[in-house]
Amino acid sequence: VTSGTPIGVVDLGGTKIYSAVLDAQGKVLGDDLRPTEAALGVASVIDRVILSLSEAAARAQVGLSALGGVGIAAPGPVVFSTGHIINPPNLPGWGDVALGPMLRERLGLRVVVENDAKAAAYGEYLEGAGRGARAMVFVTVSTGIGGAVVLDGKLYRGVDGAAGEVGHTIVVTGGPLCGCGRHGCLEAVASGTALAREGQAAILDGRAPILRRLAAVADGEVTAGLIAAAAAEGDAAAREIITRAAELLGTGLGNLVNIFNPDLIVLGGGVTRIGTPLLAPAEAAMREVALALPRRSVQLRLAALEYPAIQGLAGSIAAAASPASS
Amino acid sequence: VTSGTPIGVVDLGGTKIYSAVLDAQGKVLGDDLRPTEAALGVASVIDRVILSLSEAAARAQVGLSALGGVGIAAPGPVVFSTGHIINPPNLPGWGDVALGPMLRERLGLRVVVENDAKAAAYGEYLEGAGRGARAMVFVTVSTGIGGAVVLDGKLYRGVDGAAGEVGHTIVVTGGPLCGCGRHGCLEAVASGTALAREGQAAILDGRAPILRRLAAVADGEVTAGLIAAAAAEGDAAAREIITRAAELLGTGLGNLVNIFNPDLIVLGGGVTRIGTPLLAPAEAAMREVALALPRRSVQLRLAALEYPAIQGLAGSIAAAASPASS
Repeated sequence: VTSGTPIGVVDLGGTKIYSAVLDAQGKVLGDDLRPTEAALGVASVIDRVILSLSEAAARAQVGLSALGGVGIAAPGPVVFSTGHIINPPNLPGWGDVALGPMLRERLGLRVVVENDAKAAAYGEYLEGAGRGARAMVFVTVSTGIGGAVVLDGKLYRGVDGAAGEVGHTIVVTGGPLCGCGRHGCLEAVASGTALAREGQAAILDGRAPILRRLAAVADGEVTAGLIAAAAAEGDAAAREIITRAAELLGTGLGNLVNIFNPDLIVLGGGVTRIGTPLLAPAEAAMREVALALPRRSVQLRLAALEYPAIQGLAGSIAAAASPASS
Repeated sequence: VTSGTPIGVVDLGGTKIYSAVLDAQGKVLGDDLRPTEAALGVASVIDRVILSLSEAAARAQVGLSALGGVGIAAPGPVVFSTGHIINPPNLPGWGDVALGPMLRERLGLRVVVENDAKAAAYGEYLEGAGRGARAMVFVTVSTGIGGAVVLDGKLYRGVDGAAGEVGHTIVVTGGPLCGCGRHGCLEAVASGTALAREGQAAILDGRAPILRRLAAVADGEVTAGLIAAAAAEGDAAAREIITRAAELLGTGLGNLVNIFNPDLIVLGGGVTRIGTPLLAPAEAAMREVALALPRRSVQLRLAALEYPAIQGLAGSIAAAASPASS
């Protein structure tokens, strides 16, 4: 990357694609947001990524070929060295996809593929809630639970780039089925999906009258936000569901405190918008599970950025271009 | 440390103290083994550490003051930067003990205090089963369960030096009480102590006739080794106890695979002497819990050294003396 050259960044999600062209200071010169339409398959999604990036470049009045590099954040496991993504759970039917090489060939540009949680973690470290942390663990709670670890200013990747899958650590052996096929993963008990499952069960059992009423208005769809709204209106079952998920989230965070002895845990993802009813019991459980020595050093903070992956990708492109890169 | 100067190393355990004086090549010039007598308190144990080290030095025909440095491996959490040890569970009644500063003053030598699992992990990395690993997770299963992580050739310590406490990650929420006061820690379900507890329960229930007979011969004491012997003689309950503990150990290891994406897990500690009846189900469970990408890179190996902490301490003293130390 020539200093001063604009770069392209793409946040590829299961439901939408956000692209932006950034200047050397990280300022957005132009961007584009469109649906992923993941059901149409790999080739179609890659076409849409290129379309979206082209549109962002056009809005930035920068030719695609003038970009100094492209970073793309992808859901699921990424082999960082090769740019392959492997069985992303939110892009059904994608097996082992050579996303990096395919984009490199189509665009004729340097391409860095980063796991989305890692990109977001690095963005929070560089520009958001994680600035100055020596050992930062990032956990994002939305439909699923993802994570990443930044140690001494560098993303910790592990040998393939697959490190940080904290959503698939088992905290309730023999517990509820996870999307990954295992039982009792943190994701199976504390994600938005887990909240929705418990909310639906409470409606069916007749235990959650307020939630039931709100769900009926929302065409029957039960979301984490709806459960939070029901809890706020006094639905006891909805409150219990949130408290229980929060305690289990805190257990997972406490495990990470004992493993990493971090100075900071940053919590992101849409489910954190529930606020205090989720965050207070989660932090209490985290501190109960943490051993005395690491407990006294760790802080828990909410993520601060709207598009942390975008800033993280800019950092990853810069790091990949530097000779002393990680 | 002057190159070529002998060093002193001490493995301080809950039941015994092992000291050695090593030459620059790590060869033992003289050593000493004596009981810790932890019940006599901090001052007495520190006296015995100094006695033991003096005896090892005398046998090595090296004056204590000629040592280039002293490394001591201590059970429980160690604040690496200050040499304090904090509430070691196997040294009851020790709160926050300034072990490093006290030994430094008494000996007039540079002293490095290292958590015992970290010292052992580093020893295995330098000289044992971990040689060449890029990301190595070490888990030791004995009375308790300890752990440590070696990344790119360096011990990962976290901000206080308390990282790696994998024994106190919760895998069975609401499970059996752990020595640490929490419920369902890996240590509470897969350590030697957990095996003994389940063995005693099986004897009391009348489910384990062979184990009962063996325990009677052993004055009623139920150990992991005794349960293994009963299982080998056909005691079905003893077999089940080992298989269950192994599966939960494997769950904990699988969690670490998903977090660290390591190329190697090294398993140490006396409980691993049970062999295949423990190791086979543990590895199977680890591979079931591991996600596809990190699963294909990870190897599981048994620790190879008799006194891994000794080699690890030699490495830690050398690292502490080098200007580019961790």
